[in-house]
Amino acid sequence: MALIVMKFGGTSVADMDRIRNVAQHVKREVTAGNKVAVVVSAMAGRTNELISWVNDATETPDPKEYDAVVSSGEQVTSGLLALCLQNEGVEARSWHGWQIPLETDDAHSKARITDIKGESLKSSVENGTVAVIAGFQGISPDGRIATLGRGGSDTSAVAIAAALDADLCDIYTDVDGVYTTDPRIVSKAQRLEKVSYEEMLEMASSGAKVLQTRSVELAMTKNVRLAVRSSFDDPASVPAVNLDGNSTIGTLVCNEDEIVEQQVVSGIAYAKDEAKVTLINVADEPGVAAKVFGPLAEANINVDMIVQNVSADGATTDMTFTVPEDDLARAISVLETRKDELRYEELKGATDIVKVSVIGVGMRSHAGVAANMFKELADKGINIQAITTSEIKISILIDAAYQELAVRTLHSLFGLDQETA
Amino acid sequence: MALIVMKFGGTSVADMDRIRNVAQHVKREVTAGNKVAVVVSAMAGRTNELISWVNDATETPDPKEYDAVVSSGEQVTSGLLALCLQNEGVEARSWHGWQIPLETDDAHSKARITDIKGESLKSSVENGTVAVIAGFQGISPDGRIATLGRGGSDTSAVAIAAALDADLCDIYTDVDGVYTTDPRIVSKAQRLEKVSYEEMLEMASSGAKVLQTRSVELAMTKNVRLAVRSSFDDPASVPAVNLDGNSTIGTLVCNEDEIVEQQVVSGIAYAKDEAKVTLINVADEPGVAAKVFGPLAEANINVDMIVQNVSADGATTDMTFTVPEDDLARAISVLETRKDELRYEELKGATDIVKVSVIGVGMRSHAGVAANMFKELADKGINIQAITTSEIKISILIDAAYQELAVRTLHSLFGLDQETA
Repeated sequence: MALIVMKFGGTSVADMDRIRNVAQHVKREVTAGNKVAVVVSAMAGRTNELISWVNDATETPDPKEYDAVVSSGEQVTSGLLALCLQNEGVEARSWHGWQIPLETDDAHSKARITDIKGESLKSSVENGTVAVIAGFQGISPDGRIATLGRGGSDTSAVAIAAALDADLCDIYTDVDGVYTTDPRIVSKAQRLEKVSYEEMLEMASSGAKVLQTRSVELAMTKNVRLAVRSSFDDPASVPAVNLDGNSTIGTLVCNEDEIVEQQVVSGIAYAKDEAKVTLINVADEPGVAAKVFGPLAEANINVDMIVQNVSADGATTDMTFTVPEDDLARAISVLETRKDELRYEELKGATDIVKVSVIGVGMRSHAGVAANMFKELADKGINIQAITTSEIKISILIDAAYQELAVRTLHSLFGLDQETA
Repeated sequence: MALIVMKFGGTSVADMDRIRNVAQHVKREVTAGNKVAVVVSAMAGRTNELISWVNDATETPDPKEYDAVVSSGEQVTSGLLALCLQNEGVEARSWHGWQIPLETDDAHSKARITDIKGESLKSSVENGTVAVIAGFQGISPDGRIATLGRGGSDTSAVAIAAALDADLCDIYTDVDGVYTTDPRIVSKAQRLEKVSYEEMLEMASSGAKVLQTRSVELAMTKNVRLAVRSSFDDPASVPAVNLDGNSTIGTLVCNEDEIVEQQVVSGIAYAKDEAKVTLINVADEPGVAAKVFGPLAEANINVDMIVQNVSADGATTDMTFTVPEDDLARAISVLETRKDELRYEELKGATDIVKVSVIGVGMRSHAGVAANMFKELADKGINIQAITTSEIKISILIDAAYQELAVRTLHSLFGLDQETA
């Protein structure tokens, strides 16, 4: 017998038919002898409707009231799924965040989980009652409902799995696993059977949308084995989770040492939602970087890649960096108000760029990945505008026009193309 | 300064424009120096949508899950109104039933309030923060959300008013007060400035829909002064509640001794949703009434008026009684399965009847009301099929075709017609 957490997102519970389908997935696991806690999102579109009302009420919503309104969507889904399960003869009850309680800090609308006092939840699940938990929400120190921010239901699921000491946290979504790259761009992309936490983390923060970065971080910290699989499979045709907590379908996100044959490169990710800012002929003197990036940090703008050219004349230089596309206008306005202090000649913003990342824990022990990568792209005539690296990732910034070519080229280069039978 | 509770029903908070209108009503009271707690229903139509999903999930919903789903509508409204108030510069926060906590018994979906631990609510209101309370809901002994049944928000409001020791509980609705009878039937109907709890209770249980019977009962028990007024009045043109807790508009429901000039009859109510059951030639012997009404009570069917004819032959009699129209089919089926035991000749059900009630505390001291009433109706050729009375009410059952004629006749007879200027 395994204790598993199953998480279903908004498209998986979009209407009563989809909720009934979810009930079948859950029933399959219960019938196989597994103990189950389910974490659900709001029905697709519901949260956006609630947010639109909030924004209609006021331009500067109190985050506590925002949370009180927006959290209701998940409560509705959890009750409806509990009812559908009961209708199938499966014992079930709904749990709201405050009933568990799932405790958070007081950063309403983007709260972090501080503790889960899950004793009664755990004993209920262990006694065979399916727990249907409203995701995305907890209770703040002053007893108000707090939400975990967009995608928070993934984080709820992982935290619940850790609190219940679950054997597996199964994230059901609208794709059937994690791929070597986006299958819409590279038809030869392969589903990964296993991927390490570190790689998944780099993929998520490099543009892969299948899992929230926060939830992967938490899974890694808490050592929660995570699986990604599709809720659109026919519930009856899919095997249940093994009694030792292993799933035979989807992608398992786990510790490196669970992965026997490790590739050098596991995946190619890309992010189109970055923008490039260039300061031309800025003074090349100590402290200039602090003068540029300090105000941006204060304005809560995340700077990602930074390139500073070697100064030709020793007096001025060009500085290039990337920010989220949504923050570009704000970043430019912050820097324009400081033009006198920074003494740059020109300030340019551009959105026609893309970040492409090559990710793999095997890079640690294999030299030459970067060299191969740069040579191959040069052969294809692709100019690299900026580079950042981590121990297991190389990211480059290129002209958006070359995005598909670059992704396909690197996917082939690192041996990720699916072999045709 | 007065502490007041303001309650707004579903049509008063049907959309964002209506919620903003409610915020103006509340702001008027705050500006006038009153301390305010607001109780809100779900946006009109919302609860029905939630119930339709529940019924789609299962034919026999678990009342605990029903409550978890259905209570979400009021939570949304309370958050949105708090935001609209904040947007107007009025300090406000939302309260869910479990946050107060408003404690109930475990009769989910029709729970009764057992206690309100309102200390933090009260100190928050007294410190000048408007409390926007989700009506219709509380928390059951095992920590689940419990709803109070249809119309429960009126009951919430009265219970909150009692817990806060409020000077006035203002029920805002879609009519501007309590009338001597339905103005759609009698154009000369007058708005009552004051009406006693006892009269209001009889009116509510005799078909007047302006207030829930339960909420009036509770107001009488807890001595909560209740006002009924319209949320559709222009918030700016309406005077605020006096600082001694009196409203100059709408109808005040209060203790008899607050009413100086008491009419003999205060109002005429009617109920069309009753049905008549007649047992013809049933055995006239001891215990037959118990045999008829025992099984109906077991089936949870409320019997209202009962008439048993004097037996002509000493062996059999006809028995007539009324039940809610919705329960007629069930009542007939219950009695048909017991035909052998009851030995009646024929069983008839009819829905073409109406109950008309004359209500007034003045009846206690004025004899002859019933006699006048019966004579006047006889003069108009209206046949009375059954009669029940209480200390302050006389109800008659008549053919539905005569409903309007009877109501108008009695309204004139007891001097309730509005004088034209």
